[in-house]
Amino acid sequence: MAEKTMEKIVALAKSRGFVYPGSEIYGGLANTWDYGNLGVELKNNVKRAWWQKFVQESPYNVGVDCAILMNPQTWVASGHLGGFSDPLMDCKECHERFRADKMIEDYAHENGIDLGDSIDGWSHEQMEAYIKDKEIPCPTCGKHNFTEIREFNLMFKTFQGVTEDAKSVVYLRPETAQGIFVNFKNVQRTSRKKIPFGICQVGKSFRNEITPGNFTFRTREFEQMELEFFCEPDTDLEWFAYWKQFCLDWLKALGLKEEEVRYRDHSPEELSHYSKATTDVEFLFPFGWGELWGIADRTDFDLTQHQNTSKQDMSYFDDEKKIKYIPYVIEPSLGADRMVLAFLCSAYDEEELEGGDMRTVLRFHPALAPVKIGVLPLSKKLNEGAEKVYAQLSKKYNCEYDERGNIGKRYRRQDEIGTPFCVTYDFESEEDGAVTVRERDSMAQERVKIDELDAYFAKKFEW
Amino acid sequence: MAEKTMEKIVALAKSRGFVYPGSEIYGGLANTWDYGNLGVELKNNVKRAWWQKFVQESPYNVGVDCAILMNPQTWVASGHLGGFSDPLMDCKECHERFRADKMIEDYAHENGIDLGDSIDGWSHEQMEAYIKDKEIPCPTCGKHNFTEIREFNLMFKTFQGVTEDAKSVVYLRPETAQGIFVNFKNVQRTSRKKIPFGICQVGKSFRNEITPGNFTFRTREFEQMELEFFCEPDTDLEWFAYWKQFCLDWLKALGLKEEEVRYRDHSPEELSHYSKATTDVEFLFPFGWGELWGIADRTDFDLTQHQNTSKQDMSYFDDEKKIKYIPYVIEPSLGADRMVLAFLCSAYDEEELEGGDMRTVLRFHPALAPVKIGVLPLSKKLNEGAEKVYAQLSKKYNCEYDERGNIGKRYRRQDEIGTPFCVTYDFESEEDGAVTVRERDSMAQERVKIDELDAYFAKKFEW
Repeated sequence: MAEKTMEKIVALAKSRGFVYPGSEIYGGLANTWDYGNLGVELKNNVKRAWWQKFVQESPYNVGVDCAILMNPQTWVASGHLGGFSDPLMDCKECHERFRADKMIEDYAHENGIDLGDSIDGWSHEQMEAYIKDKEIPCPTCGKHNFTEIREFNLMFKTFQGVTEDAKSVVYLRPETAQGIFVNFKNVQRTSRKKIPFGICQVGKSFRNEITPGNFTFRTREFEQMELEFFCEPDTDLEWFAYWKQFCLDWLKALGLKEEEVRYRDHSPEELSHYSKATTDVEFLFPFGWGELWGIADRTDFDLTQHQNTSKQDMSYFDDEKKIKYIPYVIEPSLGADRMVLAFLCSAYDEEELEGGDMRTVLRFHPALAPVKIGVLPLSKKLNEGAEKVYAQLSKKYNCEYDERGNIGKRYRRQDEIGTPFCVTYDFESEEDGAVTVRERDSMAQERVKIDELDAYFAKKFEW
Repeated sequence: MAEKTMEKIVALAKSRGFVYPGSEIYGGLANTWDYGNLGVELKNNVKRAWWQKFVQESPYNVGVDCAILMNPQTWVASGHLGGFSDPLMDCKECHERFRADKMIEDYAHENGIDLGDSIDGWSHEQMEAYIKDKEIPCPTCGKHNFTEIREFNLMFKTFQGVTEDAKSVVYLRPETAQGIFVNFKNVQRTSRKKIPFGICQVGKSFRNEITPGNFTFRTREFEQMELEFFCEPDTDLEWFAYWKQFCLDWLKALGLKEEEVRYRDHSPEELSHYSKATTDVEFLFPFGWGELWGIADRTDFDLTQHQNTSKQDMSYFDDEKKIKYIPYVIEPSLGADRMVLAFLCSAYDEEELEGGDMRTVLRFHPALAPVKIGVLPLSKKLNEGAEKVYAQLSKKYNCEYDERGNIGKRYRRQDEIGTPFCVTYDFESEEDGAVTVRERDSMAQERVKIDELDAYFAKKFEW
């Protein structure tokens, strides 16, 4: 196979309507992206597939959808106001600003230096001393003249109401998790769920990252799909193992290949202070391994913090065992945008056909494909009949009607956007009431009666 | 029927998990709300029903999903930076701040004064003079000592990047429409759509309203479902009529009653300067008529503004007629949150049963009901078989498994959350492989074979 590169994937994404640069006519805005006519369908399908397995079919979990703007006390309790920051330093020569930890990591990487497990635990003094000692240059101007490190909070700040004073400051949530925690008692009460149970949320979060990048992999505005799973203390490690497996199974069921995904367990030094265990599920992007899913045993840290800060009782009473406790939490947290990007990268393929022609094909799982069925009249004279088939199928599936170009060209176009099936309506269809169904990967064709199409596709799209 | 009041609906919404006050454990945050375990399903169903009819089944429209943070030039072009503001005045005695136009309207309303069509066109001087002349008192302290009117921009402002200076100011979008306009050429190119065609978007918007209220009817953070429909100049009024009808049909197909909805055409004085025609679709909430849908003929205003500001060509070339033009736009813009509230209000019912008992029932359209099917084992001894039925049905529908309480009580509970069908698994089910299906509104029951349930419900939930 030809090499799979980010350049090719980004170009296809832009030319076929998966992802455009945000605000493009105005020269863009930092690393923002807009999902186009196919991208929105793909992303919705990813979110729907997650919701289906994590909420709808789950005997354990229910959902919520909380506001992005929350009472700022939330971020006091969660630690985001105090500690959610990057260590930044300015170059006094060119006045650019950099993340000190990132500069050190890049330097070490380029020079083959092993920094040990992670520099997350380094103090400002340690980082400043290292940069000075190694004479790490400014990435922009090459000089060695930095300010001291200052912590820069990653939350976006705005003002609610009619005055811009401290009292009216609110933050765009940096994660969807806290909306779940503050509603733990509400949801438990209204859903009448007993522990163990979980609460799922899909929604936008915002982090004022200084170095977004790699296309949609790291963006300041992003969408999360988070589960907070509440369990009895001492059962947490079992549930941690359960969800680790469940997440991997979900990815594989949707077509990610064995060699594209791996677990990366966090070492004890790398763990957040409240976490008993954390594992990342990583995907092999064209630019290297990147985190998709962070699965963390967060213990009773979050609920305890909220209980202490709000003075509201966050405990759970088990009325069978007659015990009361603050539940432990397992958090599988997935980024929807990077998940979409991973599926796009995984699906991308170039294939040499018999006869030597090449085709580009996105081998999406049928549940994820933005267009499920292409409806193609062989001739414009057949529009009337073909449009009826389109109307019938589009009641159930997102379909595309394409009457332009020769049929081979139309098949290529559908391959390139990952449409799993094409239905061709030809002159015989008028006689036999049947159409040709062509499958994307095998390119095999079969004749199916129009009034059997619903049942035929119901089976093909079962998931 | 007993009176339908907001108090009852808000109480039910809170107790059954439709809507909770946002950040409740911290005393809330202004007028923010979180959707609970049932609310998130209801809202997702509303969005899905909209997407199904406006995108999936539409031969005209495709979707997009754009970033909330956009290049600020967008808001220069759209007029939001210059003109999207409220006229505010402070009471010099108690230092509260008020909307001058709102104060005048409330005063006129209370005193039975007819202000004519609307005061939207009044100047600051006119409003100040009226308030002085009528000696309109401060709504809080009752004094008559106001500052002059100042315009207050309704966009939420934040800072992107590492400095908080003018260069890094960005705004939370006040509407999803502009993401569509700036991508008009991108979407037209990648979708290969010909005019007339439309672009749909669902997403959050933010407006720093001074007077949010009426539960989820007016909130600062809200979700929109917008269509921008692009057509040839001079065909706009036909398309305006088309979408006006289409929107009303959609509402009625989902169960809103004739007497609950009405059009309100904007008078010439009330029209925005760029609009040729605007109609609101209003719903009769318990607190009175309120706007659901604004349907506006925006002419070529938006695309022309963006063309002028960005210096990018926003025209369309019709390759059959060989003419080039800036398309005209019809915009049906719907608020998802108030749409959810309208469905909730419309569905709410209290019914006296034979024997004199009352039941509360949410008569949701099956496509909107948060729980589609309640699965109820008649006895805990029957859990094994009933759980199999639950697993089978939850592959397709959001189901609730309820084993607690007597069967009548469980039916009431499902009625109260609007579940259209309950499936009761009883001792006979073990023998005859069938269950009792009970319908919410008629309370009629019938016996259905378990292996025929899929086909049975596929028909019931067809939409």
